[in-house]
Amino acid sequence: MNQSEIKRIVQDTVSKYKTDKSVMTLSLAEKIAGAVLAEAERIGVKAVVCVSDAGGHPRLVKSMDDAYIASYDVAVNKAFTVVALKMSTIALKPLAQPGESLYGIQFTNGGRIVIFGGGDPLVNADGKIIGGLGVSGGSEEQDTALSAFGKAYFEGLF
Amino acid sequence: MNQSEIKRIVQDTVSKYKTDKSVMTLSLAEKIAGAVLAEAERIGVKAVVCVSDAGGHPRLVKSMDDAYIASYDVAVNKAFTVVALKMSTIALKPLAQPGESLYGIQFTNGGRIVIFGGGDPLVNADGKIIGGLGVSGGSEEQDTALSAFGKAYFEGLF
Amino acid sequence: MNQSEIKRIVQDTVSKYKTDKSVMTLSLAEKIAGAVLAEAERIGVKAVVCVSDAGGHPRLVKSMDDAYIASYDVAVNKAFTVVALKMSTIALKPLAQPGESLYGIQFTNGGRIVIFGGGDPLVNADGKIIGGLGVSGGSEEQDTALSAFGKAYFEGLF
Amino acid sequence: MNQSEIKRIVQDTVSKYKTDKSVMTLSLAEKIAGAVLAEAERIGVKAVVCVSDAGGHPRLVKSMDDAYIASYDVAVNKAFTVVALKMSTIALKPLAQPGESLYGIQFTNGGRIVIFGGGDPLVNADGKIIGGLGVSGGSEEQDTALSAFGKAYFEGLF
Repeated sequence: MNQSEIKRIVQDTVSKYKTDKSVMTLSLAEKIAGAVLAEAERIGVKAVVCVSDAGGHPRLVKSMDDAYIASYDVAVNKAFTVVALKMSTIALKPLAQPGESLYGIQFTNGGRIVIFGGGDPLVNADGKIIGGLGVSGGSEEQDTALSAFGKAYFEGLF
Repeated sequence: MNQSEIKRIVQDTVSKYKTDKSVMTLSLAEKIAGAVLAEAERIGVKAVVCVSDAGGHPRLVKSMDDAYIASYDVAVNKAFTVVALKMSTIALKPLAQPGESLYGIQFTNGGRIVIFGGGDPLVNADGKIIGGLGVSGGSEEQDTALSAFGKAYFEGLF
Repeated sequence: MNQSEIKRIVQDTVSKYKTDKSVMTLSLAEKIAGAVLAEAERIGVKAVVCVSDAGGHPRLVKSMDDAYIASYDVAVNKAFTVVALKMSTIALKPLAQPGESLYGIQFTNGGRIVIFGGGDPLVNADGKIIGGLGVSGGSEEQDTALSAFGKAYFEGLF
Repeated sequence: MNQSEIKRIVQDTVSKYKTDKSVMTLSLAEKIAGAVLAEAERIGVKAVVCVSDAGGHPRLVKSMDDAYIASYDVAVNKAFTVVALKMSTIALKPLAQPGESLYGIQFTNGGRIVIFGGGDPLVNADGKIIGGLGVSGGSEEQDTALSAFGKAYFEGLF
């Protein structure tokens, strides 16, 4: 084999195993949710995890055994919020407190904007938001950590 | 080994591998959704599948790539309807037509009652409804068939 | 100039003036809405026109003078429906009548599914739905014709 | 020409070019939105702009490319709020904080009252509110400035 043949084979192989992050697929959502659920299991949180697409529409929602009933709406709405406002819900939190610049945003979008931690936009290497991640079930600190974990997992995917 | 030792070992082994159908777990929901999605793939339908628990709350929702955006709400609401009314949505359909006995049920529950095919209650061997299955994405016939497929798969689980 | 230079110049020029139909931009939405409004003016309809993106989110809404107040919600919801169900609202209409396969779909998605004519998905040359068009204000026949006009205009854009 | 002929010609010419501000027309809404969008472009904000009529109903909504999904509802609701309460949203803001006189207004109107900056009523020379302007997409300061810019533009229109 000459060098260009080797190069082609390597490129083909890499592209075969490399995760496509141009759009949120169910397969990609499964990977992210799986990583978050494993981590939730490890730290003892019964979580609901939602992965949405770039339009804020849920692609995958999983509710662990004995998770809060309320966590379903919270997780789904977190995954919407982060896409709709292009920021994590923990970053939105201070802005939405009484007296602050966005206080009231929690009432203006049909109750779909969540203003506490546990949601992160999923941004690919091109800087494009291809989806959102919402986690609910633990304390705010735990949900925030789990969502950040899922975000880092997504970014680290080959 | 005497006979009672053998009996005990068999019982232990069976209980180890037998699916617990006393309550809807995420693990059980994954099996059912997986079977329905494989069948949807086979017949060429891009489906959204929802499995709810006995309270009608979603435990698992999966949206296949390129499924209808509208199918998310429809699948989740089908999985609610079948638990809330203890019947399949295709059985509810004729009752909810204008002039029929339940006409109006589609307006009374916050838009969560679906009156066309694609949803089945999941009833265990004790006759207890432990959850609901909702499928949306194909024609009504396809959704009805996919939901029935999932129901049969659930009932046939060892 | 040799042939390849001429070819390159032609390609550059074409790509410069060719409408990008890979995604719904405000600029593209303006063109489509402008064409529909001019046609509405011509046939004497006071219309509301909405152009949504691939996620069903409105990019542009225009309400002609003296249009119906009700037409705003109708046009916005038509532009959502056609993206959410990947079909025109006039094609959905017969399926959503009492007794038919999708009767009830008008109640299951938060009142956002419109089941009469005047909405069309906007499909590019690659067969991808990049947005939706909703028109309301005239008779159903007029709205259907105006939406079809906008769709044809979009497809014919260079 | 005598003096009265000259006067008539001047009056005719002025009325021909003078903007009619007795009622919000689509044409007038286009001018205002165009001015706001140009200013948003200039300061680097991806905004959604809504101009409503005296009834609070949107006449025109434009979403710049890559604007927040959430900004659509916010801009439309700002343009409603300012007409519905006859004040800018930045003036409403302090009144709607916990403990203040209008705290609670954000819950009483179906989630349509916005209590942070970016919305202004459009008042003509006769002191009549003929419409509302809502801008969303930047920081509160930016949205407030853009809305004030649009209001000043409207007032300065010949």
